[in-house]
Amino acid sequence: MGERNDYISDAVIRRLPRYYRYLGELLQNGVTRISSGELSEKMGLTASQVRQDFNHFGGFGQQGYGYNVESLYSEVARILGIDQPHNVIIIGAGHIGAALANYPNFEKRGFHVIGIFDNDPALIGTEIAGHVIHADEELPVFIRDNAIDIAVLAIPKVQALKMAELLCDYGIKGIWNFASTDLEIVNPDVIVENVHLTDSIMRLSYKLRNKQERE
Amino acid sequence: MGERNDYISDAVIRRLPRYYRYLGELLQNGVTRISSGELSEKMGLTASQVRQDFNHFGGFGQQGYGYNVESLYSEVARILGIDQPHNVIIIGAGHIGAALANYPNFEKRGFHVIGIFDNDPALIGTEIAGHVIHADEELPVFIRDNAIDIAVLAIPKVQALKMAELLCDYGIKGIWNFASTDLEIVNPDVIVENVHLTDSIMRLSYKLRNKQERE
Repeated sequence: MGERNDYISDAVIRRLPRYYRYLGELLQNGVTRISSGELSEKMGLTASQVRQDFNHFGGFGQQGYGYNVESLYSEVARILGIDQPHNVIIIGAGHIGAALANYPNFEKRGFHVIGIFDNDPALIGTEIAGHVIHADEELPVFIRDNAIDIAVLAIPKVQALKMAELLCDYGIKGIWNFASTDLEIVNPDVIVENVHLTDSIMRLSYKLRNKQERE
Repeated sequence: MGERNDYISDAVIRRLPRYYRYLGELLQNGVTRISSGELSEKMGLTASQVRQDFNHFGGFGQQGYGYNVESLYSEVARILGIDQPHNVIIIGAGHIGAALANYPNFEKRGFHVIGIFDNDPALIGTEIAGHVIHADEELPVFIRDNAIDIAVLAIPKVQALKMAELLCDYGIKGIWNFASTDLEIVNPDVIVENVHLTDSIMRLSYKLRNKQERE
């Protein structure tokens, strides 16, 4: 295991899920062992970058052998906190909320959607992906009774901050935010991860423009 | 306008859409002028970082005045390539594809979804968000006739690479990839921007675990 260094850069954190995906593919393909050189090539990094990344968490490689794929895969899962399941609720039963409720990859990684909530009376009581849509009023009791740690915010921007603050009060520890705003949560106990879809397509647009200008 | 420096880091590119969002909010609130200090505070950056970011693109600020919000907003739009509209198609009419077709923010930013495609005979001919779902076979003609520059890949991972290669052949310049794989596109003319939703929720899980361990 080794000691975990204090500061892990955002770039390293961004690479961890990619390592996990690649190692999963290697395992599926029956690869049992990989050198840092081979892994780095697959990841588009240098071998020393790969070694440095894992050194933050205690190494895991053996000189002259490389990495055992299965145990590195487990270690990365542990680092990512996905060696244990997460109970997830989705706030907002609109198109994005429904798409996420139906997304098979979350379940596969141990993120179990166990409740969907909306404030629209026309939606409450109907079902998405086998889940009955609950009223927002049921949130505090549901969160407490079902040991929910992650809430997905799939509601409009104008409602997002207020709902996020309520969720903090109800004991949610992580918010996965799809609303198009950076939630300035005052609660230091709560972690927010933003998925700004419009930011992402704008980055694509930026790169297209930038490429045109160079040509 | 000024000269555009050669190398723009990924971190700067990631901040550009955030600047755009913040400046849009300022405009909406009737703010006409802002200092780099105020803008940096809103963004969670230092004032010198803000100035450096914009210096990559020629500056735009005036000593002792700060930034004119409206003109900075337009400049950022131009840098992001969203001062002109983009014609977008969505490949895959499943839950994610449907959610994206229904997402109002894209239209607002000039990303016009003008076609949806699927290979499922049960879906072809039905409608999503007012768009008839076309068969994949129609892609080459549709892309050519409608000056499509961006394709959204909302199909399973196993089909993604092959479809991406076809799209390149058909003349697509940008791929917004929702498939859970890094597309190793061989075509240097095509830009891929990945949205790995599972990576994102794993980063949230990482931060939750990391926080637990420190407590």
